[in-house]
Amino acid sequence: MKKLRTGVLGATGLAGQQVVAALQGHPWFVVTALAASERSAGKPYGEALRGSGGASRWFADGSADPSVESLVMGAAPDLVDADVDLVFSAVDREVALEWEPKLAARVPVISTASAFRDEADVPLLLPGINNAHAGVIPTQRKMRGWRGFIAPIPNCTTTGLAISLKPLQDRFGLRLVAMTSMQAVSGAGRAGGVLALDVIDNVVPFIPGEEEKVVRETRKILGCWGDRFEPAPLALTCTCTRVNVQDGHTEAVFVATERPADAEAAFEAMAAFTPEGLAGLPSAPERLLQVVRDPFRPQPRRDRDAGGGMTVTVGRMRTDEALGGVKYVVLSHNTKLGAGKGAVLLAEWLTREGFVGGPA
Amino acid sequence: MKKLRTGVLGATGLAGQQVVAALQGHPWFVVTALAASERSAGKPYGEALRGSGGASRWFADGSADPSVESLVMGAAPDLVDADVDLVFSAVDREVALEWEPKLAARVPVISTASAFRDEADVPLLLPGINNAHAGVIPTQRKMRGWRGFIAPIPNCTTTGLAISLKPLQDRFGLRLVAMTSMQAVSGAGRAGGVLALDVIDNVVPFIPGEEEKVVRETRKILGCWGDRFEPAPLALTCTCTRVNVQDGHTEAVFVATERPADAEAAFEAMAAFTPEGLAGLPSAPERLLQVVRDPFRPQPRRDRDAGGGMTVTVGRMRTDEALGGVKYVVLSHNTKLGAGKGAVLLAEWLTREGFVGGPA
Amino acid sequence: MKKLRTGVLGATGLAGQQVVAALQGHPWFVVTALAASERSAGKPYGEALRGSGGASRWFADGSADPSVESLVMGAAPDLVDADVDLVFSAVDREVALEWEPKLAARVPVISTASAFRDEADVPLLLPGINNAHAGVIPTQRKMRGWRGFIAPIPNCTTTGLAISLKPLQDRFGLRLVAMTSMQAVSGAGRAGGVLALDVIDNVVPFIPGEEEKVVRETRKILGCWGDRFEPAPLALTCTCTRVNVQDGHTEAVFVATERPADAEAAFEAMAAFTPEGLAGLPSAPERLLQVVRDPFRPQPRRDRDAGGGMTVTVGRMRTDEALGGVKYVVLSHNTKLGAGKGAVLLAEWLTREGFVGGPA
Amino acid sequence: MKKLRTGVLGATGLAGQQVVAALQGHPWFVVTALAASERSAGKPYGEALRGSGGASRWFADGSADPSVESLVMGAAPDLVDADVDLVFSAVDREVALEWEPKLAARVPVISTASAFRDEADVPLLLPGINNAHAGVIPTQRKMRGWRGFIAPIPNCTTTGLAISLKPLQDRFGLRLVAMTSMQAVSGAGRAGGVLALDVIDNVVPFIPGEEEKVVRETRKILGCWGDRFEPAPLALTCTCTRVNVQDGHTEAVFVATERPADAEAAFEAMAAFTPEGLAGLPSAPERLLQVVRDPFRPQPRRDRDAGGGMTVTVGRMRTDEALGGVKYVVLSHNTKLGAGKGAVLLAEWLTREGFVGGPA
Repeated sequence: MKKLRTGVLGATGLAGQQVVAALQGHPWFVVTALAASERSAGKPYGEALRGSGGASRWFADGSADPSVESLVMGAAPDLVDADVDLVFSAVDREVALEWEPKLAARVPVISTASAFRDEADVPLLLPGINNAHAGVIPTQRKMRGWRGFIAPIPNCTTTGLAISLKPLQDRFGLRLVAMTSMQAVSGAGRAGGVLALDVIDNVVPFIPGEEEKVVRETRKILGCWGDRFEPAPLALTCTCTRVNVQDGHTEAVFVATERPADAEAAFEAMAAFTPEGLAGLPSAPERLLQVVRDPFRPQPRRDRDAGGGMTVTVGRMRTDEALGGVKYVVLSHNTKLGAGKGAVLLAEWLTREGFVGGPA
Repeated sequence: MKKLRTGVLGATGLAGQQVVAALQGHPWFVVTALAASERSAGKPYGEALRGSGGASRWFADGSADPSVESLVMGAAPDLVDADVDLVFSAVDREVALEWEPKLAARVPVISTASAFRDEADVPLLLPGINNAHAGVIPTQRKMRGWRGFIAPIPNCTTTGLAISLKPLQDRFGLRLVAMTSMQAVSGAGRAGGVLALDVIDNVVPFIPGEEEKVVRETRKILGCWGDRFEPAPLALTCTCTRVNVQDGHTEAVFVATERPADAEAAFEAMAAFTPEGLAGLPSAPERLLQVVRDPFRPQPRRDRDAGGGMTVTVGRMRTDEALGGVKYVVLSHNTKLGAGKGAVLLAEWLTREGFVGGPA
Repeated sequence: MKKLRTGVLGATGLAGQQVVAALQGHPWFVVTALAASERSAGKPYGEALRGSGGASRWFADGSADPSVESLVMGAAPDLVDADVDLVFSAVDREVALEWEPKLAARVPVISTASAFRDEADVPLLLPGINNAHAGVIPTQRKMRGWRGFIAPIPNCTTTGLAISLKPLQDRFGLRLVAMTSMQAVSGAGRAGGVLALDVIDNVVPFIPGEEEKVVRETRKILGCWGDRFEPAPLALTCTCTRVNVQDGHTEAVFVATERPADAEAAFEAMAAFTPEGLAGLPSAPERLLQVVRDPFRPQPRRDRDAGGGMTVTVGRMRTDEALGGVKYVVLSHNTKLGAGKGAVLLAEWLTREGFVGGPA
Repeated sequence: MKKLRTGVLGATGLAGQQVVAALQGHPWFVVTALAASERSAGKPYGEALRGSGGASRWFADGSADPSVESLVMGAAPDLVDADVDLVFSAVDREVALEWEPKLAARVPVISTASAFRDEADVPLLLPGINNAHAGVIPTQRKMRGWRGFIAPIPNCTTTGLAISLKPLQDRFGLRLVAMTSMQAVSGAGRAGGVLALDVIDNVVPFIPGEEEKVVRETRKILGCWGDRFEPAPLALTCTCTRVNVQDGHTEAVFVATERPADAEAAFEAMAAFTPEGLAGLPSAPERLLQVVRDPFRPQPRRDRDAGGGMTVTVGRMRTDEALGGVKYVVLSHNTKLGAGKGAVLLAEWLTREGFVGGPA
């Protein structure tokens, strides 16, 4: 198979670097175009990542491939004109609002930005969790007159929650979910990132906008798509906090179920959960969801890299008699599954389903 | 007023040091007897706190007074025989089980240990929150044939939760509470303390025994005492985690109320809360409970020392439509209000109420 | 005594807030004018410190006085015109280069900025360490035609080093100093501050420009002023690193002395050190320099607040046979002694010496 | 080649686990006997690593192989009787003093303990750095009447320092070295490990015994072995501190050289350094020593895993005019190169050199 030519918008940012890292050596995709702000345009990618005094500004794992480092960067308009089969967009909401539609007019856009997640004709896809939602893509194309489309991934705090809730929803039904997150600092990126001053010996009990995203997105992901999206009818409440952790969002979840559930049954439901459609995708982990019995796990430092950062880990499963359901702790890697590598997994799934790479 | 002669059991431990620190310069109490393990017996307190090479093993704020440093320590039996008016006990559960009854046979024992908290004739007092529970003390004395009594303070994670729930219980009634704690490492003390290895860049999602204590103790504190204890009829569920914070337990609380509540009414209820019986007690803060509007607060590092570590701070008050009630974040200092200084406040209240210092 | 009317340039920044905090309730100075960027001009100080959603942007200890919060802020030109007796400048190097001369044309300027520290007619004063250097001030005034003058405090990493070296220089003479710093994150402020991403579970071995400052400034401070500055003739080398600490710079120092020194003699020299001219200054600590025998001290968290953050603590004094001298560890508070409160101490000293507040 | 049967003493400790982890899937060695304290004896290794409630006490990377988990553990005497070709010892100094000689009477013992490092007939080998020191082994065997021998690895803080100094010694000669370490918490293990209480927002400026080890061991490693050990004639001084880092010791090094050196020449000397005898050893990294130009590196979190944790990284190379030499920062992984995996590398080298596995 000829590799699909791939562009990355926002390639110098932390999320963009994660996308580039996830695409290195990829069997299906090859990066052929990179874009970021005007400041970087015209420079080779490797040079754009070099700070003063030779400091490296590459913060993803490993190092960038020489073939990618030598790619001369463009600005957003150059990417609109580029001869690519798909584009990853890893930019701020405002940039996404302006440029993702222009890109989507020509090619599929897989986005880590929140700009279009709530649109009625845009799916919020987690492969293996809500595959049917891709059914809205032809509508999106038609309504907007685009040859491509926009497919965002969810907020990184939503991802682990939604994946862990899915088998409980299937088995017991969900009535109420109350979640408290303890989020890593990497989620905030470098520009406007979390200051050390604010998290040393500390917890910050507020992340602007985060709780609203988790509520809206989780209900959309777990909802139905018929001819329109019907959010899942669960009551969902949450508090999002920032803790002194590099990578990996930890969430304490209390669930009231529709039908009786206890710890053992919920454990089994999660252990038996086999998401459809992931087998054979290059970035898919052996298990999307694992559930463990060691009461001291999951821990972000020890478990975030399970499955190459693509496996969600659940532990501390307990019957919750107060709520009538179960309670547990879930952990997922916010910059791998929850950002760059998760976007690549979605692109892989869309490719195999025929949404990417075929004749428009 | 002549100062009451005061003994401290477990004086070399972290909690015991906090008690000693809280008693320094105290207007009502003077430390006259200190006890710890056999290893320390016979040494001046200052020497018992000196490690090899002259290292100080005093970890409370400031430094120990010379008058206290020169006190020659005894072991537990010495404290039983000592001529004191009251004893603070800051020892492990097992030591407490053995020695607190022997001490209580003669004098009041204010304890930070969990050993007797669940006994039917032992109150779990938070001055200003459940003063009436002291009514069980005469029963305890009579039933056990003691001249003194045992009065434990609650677990440090329970304290902030119970204080913040009290005005909501009074105003709206409590139906269900779901709480996730992010606890500081100092709660675990030094012997068997939390290893740096386990919390650097990490969250540990389990603290053995903690969740059961929070549930039992909160329900007891918020319950009634008539001729026996009736736990508060609220459903309570929680997950307790350890985070990379020195001092100060942060708790995200979701509350379903009996009667309609919203953020503003709950804020007002907390702001208007005036606990009875604290005025004039030397260790009482100006406000036992404060509620703030800055959405980024409370934070453990910035707020734990409010009111000298004796003020509980609540923030992020929001209406919770999912649960039918409110949600908020509460912070309290686990080794001040939640341990040493909180025990001293209880002793002060018991003294003014006539339970300590008078003829038995 | 009538209080001196005091202006603060850069009042909303972290260093400026430290100055404002140090001036609250000050017996000699009263803040009457505040200035920062154009964005804040026209707003009351309290409002300028309020972020979105009511978030407080006050990061110094305690809270700002209502009298200061209600002061309407100006921009730099307003401060030039303000009727004040002295100005504290806590701005970036570039802003200082432009505005400090305009301010100094009229009034004394005490600065935390590095802009003028290396000028031949500008003293780098540490009261008690190099008081004679103030002798250059009349020259500065005359040469530049200013009614006021510029008096910067040293870089925060230099301060602890220079103070700890002074008694060794006096007693033994200094031949060579090799220093490695482990610096707190607060030194970098909030704008462009250290990201949590960069220091969690990490050490950053480089702080741009810092090492050069330490070398130049330490030699200037410990040098002589006759009719010009003669840097101290010691060889000085250093490596400056950033560690995961909030406040307090720790420095490991190796010293080769001119005359024989050993640990005990150096300990005594430091213990006996009595800086001249500090007695009676409101911000002066009881001891500017303390030396301790506990081998595990100094530690930033436990010792930075000694003397209200104004005492430098030295420990681990050892004879250094390899170098022919001694080695030790020194700790000082970088945002108190090393910034805001240190600037106020300098202003106090200059006032008592007649450089501030009298007729020019 | 038939794999050599390998025993591990102290297999349940942190260092022992690192050894076991480094031996999993090893092409030359197979673990056939494990021993630890009496408490573990008789249990399968996997069970000995299980704490209460199913908690895992395996803290090395990945997980233990089922074949190793099922090995029934013995105590030290069982290992003396076991039919093995070599033993790794990862126990405390006291246990090593007692048991390593008993083991060495029969088989080669590769040890992470400090017990025998300073003995006149015991080499302190770093393969590629001081291979000739193995020449003492026959003497050791003969003098002590052992069929085996004891070969300890150096202290983890010494390792990175000695390796980085070697090319400078070869090229320029070493006159004086002053080093300050910023050490990770994992070096202290779990039993008696560093408390979170002590390093959160903190630096601890003292590690008992560490500085003496670094001085003695570095001089021994860089010294000569003829018919006896002649320590390198360099003056060496150091201060060892503990910082809030999980893994990876960072050291700031100042070096006065015998012959003129500058940054560029020293950089070249390190870049060109090719240790002899490592090629083909399974645990040898591609480069034992790498030197980088990015001024913000090395950083423990970003660089400790270079070469699978076996590569030492040097950065910030600068000419040191004060000392007459160079200064730099060096980083090495304290539990990989500096402990378990480093011990395995030494065993590999000894095997290829014929000291292990052949007829005694």
